[in-house]
Amino acid sequence: MSLLVVGSIAIDSVETPCGTADEVMGGSAVYFSYAASIFGDVRLVGAVGQDFPREFHEALQERPIDLEGLEVVEGKTFRWEGAYKGDMAQAETRDVKLNVFEDFQPEVPAVFRDSEFVFLANGSPYTQIHVLDQMESPEFALADTMNLWIENERDGLLELMNRVDALILNDAEARQLSEDANLLRAARWICNRGPDYCIIKKGEHGSLLRGPDGIFVLPAFPSENLTDPTGAGDSFAGGLMGYLASEAKVDMEALKQGLAHGTVTASFTLEDFSTDSLGNVTTDQLDQRMQEFLRCTQLKA
Amino acid sequence: MSLLVVGSIAIDSVETPCGTADEVMGGSAVYFSYAASIFGDVRLVGAVGQDFPREFHEALQERPIDLEGLEVVEGKTFRWEGAYKGDMAQAETRDVKLNVFEDFQPEVPAVFRDSEFVFLANGSPYTQIHVLDQMESPEFALADTMNLWIENERDGLLELMNRVDALILNDAEARQLSEDANLLRAARWICNRGPDYCIIKKGEHGSLLRGPDGIFVLPAFPSENLTDPTGAGDSFAGGLMGYLASEAKVDMEALKQGLAHGTVTASFTLEDFSTDSLGNVTTDQLDQRMQEFLRCTQLKA
Repeated sequence: MSLLVVGSIAIDSVETPCGTADEVMGGSAVYFSYAASIFGDVRLVGAVGQDFPREFHEALQERPIDLEGLEVVEGKTFRWEGAYKGDMAQAETRDVKLNVFEDFQPEVPAVFRDSEFVFLANGSPYTQIHVLDQMESPEFALADTMNLWIENERDGLLELMNRVDALILNDAEARQLSEDANLLRAARWICNRGPDYCIIKKGEHGSLLRGPDGIFVLPAFPSENLTDPTGAGDSFAGGLMGYLASEAKVDMEALKQGLAHGTVTASFTLEDFSTDSLGNVTTDQLDQRMQEFLRCTQLKA
Repeated sequence: MSLLVVGSIAIDSVETPCGTADEVMGGSAVYFSYAASIFGDVRLVGAVGQDFPREFHEALQERPIDLEGLEVVEGKTFRWEGAYKGDMAQAETRDVKLNVFEDFQPEVPAVFRDSEFVFLANGSPYTQIHVLDQMESPEFALADTMNLWIENERDGLLELMNRVDALILNDAEARQLSEDANLLRAARWICNRGPDYCIIKKGEHGSLLRGPDGIFVLPAFPSENLTDPTGAGDSFAGGLMGYLASEAKVDMEALKQGLAHGTVTASFTLEDFSTDSLGNVTTDQLDQRMQEFLRCTQLKA
């Protein structure tokens, strides 16, 4: 089934204990698209500035990503500079320049409006609602959010939650939104306010899914090879949505499997800077790592 | 098979966001014994002072715990006062009085020396070695440790590691011991220094097992009902060792199942103060919660 992502496209500069990467491709829509396109076609809506490097554009074109919705706008591309230290659990933002992303009002191309699966990457809830307003009748819409919107656009976020099938956010954000330290209660609080499903990303501690049929928890893929966590959350969402769209199913069982596929997909992102590792993953490699993940997390019946 | 625990018996006073418990029974050997005795008989070696309440003694006697090794020594029982705040991830110690535990040199009763499964609860590595020296030929010895010994008795701890089959410790301790932030590498570092297996407890984030045949990771039991985490780690070890002793097996598959049983056993401890919840668990309740745990963590094949 068709899968649409609306989100940011960025030029990142990142420093981690493993090294640095200067002016590399990043942004939620990029990581999501790279991840989801391992499973099938992806439609992308986003904006870049006139400085967006030709080689980044070409790299996107080489994948099964439909760039009909990629706008080149007057101005500069969104830039993020950040660093990770120690266990790399948290990014320290050194500089952000929203540039063309600041006034980005996504226009979904007419040919994308029938998309059945929709991922609204982190952005203002009102912008996310503006995207939904343009869609015909998506089967499954998943929205991401962050602390900024929880603090400053809470009403918009609550409105959005009534419009989507699922909300994805990290553990700190779930606690902040629900004002509850317990993640299971936080997920229930969220599900009581609109979405059928809530997915909480816990970084190196894995993920949690709450739906009408209960709870599901999965560890992260156990990796000794963490280089740069940037984009792992969006890669997780990309693997999850790519899997669901390819299976054309959205029940609890499919979502559990989606969580596992998202986990395994994200494990590649972490292993190198930018999309250097994720961009080279074959379906065979993904299947192989999925088997490894099952060996590491599943008991024999 | 026979199972021995050597550890502390304490009188705890605990404050959590859910309430307080004053002068309740605690200590590593107590939580371990309560947990393991759901699976079968346990032999306990420990010391209490003359002030140890008769009702605590009777409560221990009511369970299948052999108290042949319980010494009543002149002086007072080990006392701990602590508090948990927020998400209760870390205890804040308000007061510790080691009392009779300070000079405790465990003497293993002759009738306990043939024990096949041995749990050396957290204590000085030299004391733990002193216990091992008294044992005939245990099939599987598991030792717990803590930051105090990693800092102050590192040589003793490394000597102990060469004598046991497995080491269990929490995530912060594993990082401190190995001087590596990555838990998988930390576990490998430990396994390279003696034990066949390393088990890392990650509190609300579950546990990790490293053995000669690879890695296994499990989430914690998803619970909305956290009242007091005191003793959860020792209950986890008790469920794990109780299960292994009851199955009379110690290969990787058995340890994976042991991890799951330890997880589920510990989930009861958290639900009330002291052993109030754990002490009332029946085998049926444990089996039922195990099924719930499998539903929450295992994918359909």
